[in-house]
Amino acid sequence: MSLEHPVIAIVGAGAVGGYYGARLAQHGHTVHFLLRSDYETVRTNGWVIRSCDGDFVLRPDQIHVHNTPATMPKADLVIITLKATANDQYQPLIAPLIKDDTLLLTLQNGLGNEQRLADLFGAHRVLGGLAFVCINRIAPGQIAHTDHGQIQIGEFQGPPTQRTLTIAKMFNAVGVRTKVLDSLLYGRWEKLLWNIPFNGLGAAMDLPTDALIGNEAGLALVRSIMEEVCAIAAALGVQFPPDIIDQKIDHTRTMGSYRSSMQIDRQAGRPLEVEAILGQPVSVAQSLGIQVPRMEMLYRLVRLVDPAAIGNPGRPINAGVR
Amino acid sequence: MSLEHPVIAIVGAGAVGGYYGARLAQHGHTVHFLLRSDYETVRTNGWVIRSCDGDFVLRPDQIHVHNTPATMPKADLVIITLKATANDQYQPLIAPLIKDDTLLLTLQNGLGNEQRLADLFGAHRVLGGLAFVCINRIAPGQIAHTDHGQIQIGEFQGPPTQRTLTIAKMFNAVGVRTKVLDSLLYGRWEKLLWNIPFNGLGAAMDLPTDALIGNEAGLALVRSIMEEVCAIAAALGVQFPPDIIDQKIDHTRTMGSYRSSMQIDRQAGRPLEVEAILGQPVSVAQSLGIQVPRMEMLYRLVRLVDPAAIGNPGRPINAGVR
Repeated sequence: MSLEHPVIAIVGAGAVGGYYGARLAQHGHTVHFLLRSDYETVRTNGWVIRSCDGDFVLRPDQIHVHNTPATMPKADLVIITLKATANDQYQPLIAPLIKDDTLLLTLQNGLGNEQRLADLFGAHRVLGGLAFVCINRIAPGQIAHTDHGQIQIGEFQGPPTQRTLTIAKMFNAVGVRTKVLDSLLYGRWEKLLWNIPFNGLGAAMDLPTDALIGNEAGLALVRSIMEEVCAIAAALGVQFPPDIIDQKIDHTRTMGSYRSSMQIDRQAGRPLEVEAILGQPVSVAQSLGIQVPRMEMLYRLVRLVDPAAIGNPGRPINAGVR
Repeated sequence: MSLEHPVIAIVGAGAVGGYYGARLAQHGHTVHFLLRSDYETVRTNGWVIRSCDGDFVLRPDQIHVHNTPATMPKADLVIITLKATANDQYQPLIAPLIKDDTLLLTLQNGLGNEQRLADLFGAHRVLGGLAFVCINRIAPGQIAHTDHGQIQIGEFQGPPTQRTLTIAKMFNAVGVRTKVLDSLLYGRWEKLLWNIPFNGLGAAMDLPTDALIGNEAGLALVRSIMEEVCAIAAALGVQFPPDIIDQKIDHTRTMGSYRSSMQIDRQAGRPLEVEAILGQPVSVAQSLGIQVPRMEMLYRLVRLVDPAAIGNPGRPINAGVR
């Protein structure tokens, strides 16, 4: 990839992709955004970013805005920030952007994204990343970045290489604190250790983090689910510190009444990233012969309330209840 | 017990106790009702019963109404219809009513009620029963009985005896269809087989029966919980027919969009009968060394949303969620 003047494509420029792409464009990179619902607004008005790291506006002439990959150039780096529920769009959205040396970096939630990209486009070009960011789309073309923002990236296959370091350097240079992971697998499972109980229970029960760990029953439940996640990770060779569950609980206490992204999606009547966050990990456990009855049950509970499954995404979740 | 002219006490005369007591009084039995919130209304106006088996009114002079056991006579038969969440009141409410040959019949939900009565008052006088009835208190002193109504009763210890048959005959004579159980244990676990998944998930998820079995995930979940209940029952020597789970699912499909009592209690901000329906069965499983991870998880989920645990019974359950 040319890193002097890379052509960068953001596929699925919602809050996360919009923000990171805008940071890159703010510092002079060539960024092509693929948008859906906010296309007209961003094309006309650019991006308006309210960020705890500094507000800024990108004028339309500073960016490239598309509503179809057909108008986009081949890219050196494709950053994928689709919701994982839209992964069936990988082929039509990404294939047109690929040339020989195109790199693909997925910053999506959950498990299975890198594998799916590798199956479609070749494992050699795939990197994965974790975005630790509190961010929301507050209006068309307007993003509120309220906390954190760091990224961790790693190679899908094996340890970091020069290109991994180069991409991290590029992000760090535009104010996005980025760490290179020796093992993407470790990073993914560490994030799942939190996401599985808190996104899963948050969505299933429609409860924020403090309510989930606010009494003895909830705390025991979160811990028992985390123990199952740890068992899978251990079987995959991921070596967490022995007190990792305590660490995660302690950290969660500092977050106050935090609504996970999946709880927010449920409240908004949007499809839930249940396959990436629960379905895939349960499949991995099953393929390893590990018993995860709590994760299986949570997977089923979340599917029970998934607006996509209920088939009426716009409706508040409890409207069917007498 | 004198069955020519028994003195009957109803302890906890809500909808269930009010209805069965009223049926007995309607046919000339001497019934003393112990009430709390509806005491003044019933004392002044009597009971107003709207029943699918025939409406009727009991005038105040046809019944005996109390708001403390101190004014009540010793009883031949005490029928206990407290919510199981009030079982810590057994001693003060029941002890004053007991003489040598007093019989105690609990028609409460869940597991552990007979044992607790036996511990306090002697196992020899304890009978248990299951009420299959769709019933609600619609206003102070007014009860709507909309469907079913049959009772199954059995001895806490051992097979039915003459007194079991006598009590059943008494109920049948006043229009309450009553069956004598050869094994109360069987009856309790058969009811738990339905109550554990549908009351548990109904309350935890705030979903009625049709929503719980309306998709593949929910159906699989209900079945997996029922399998755990069957495993406990089998270990206790209860022999269900091999297709009992299919039977229960099929029966549930005929019920339409039915809200379990525990879901209704959650919606009303009332304490949930979570110990009787989930906590006790999980304890039994643990004492038998049977793994019931799904029931354990459900127990924790229900406690997470129990208005009693949240400590603010009058508040809608989700008010704390942002």
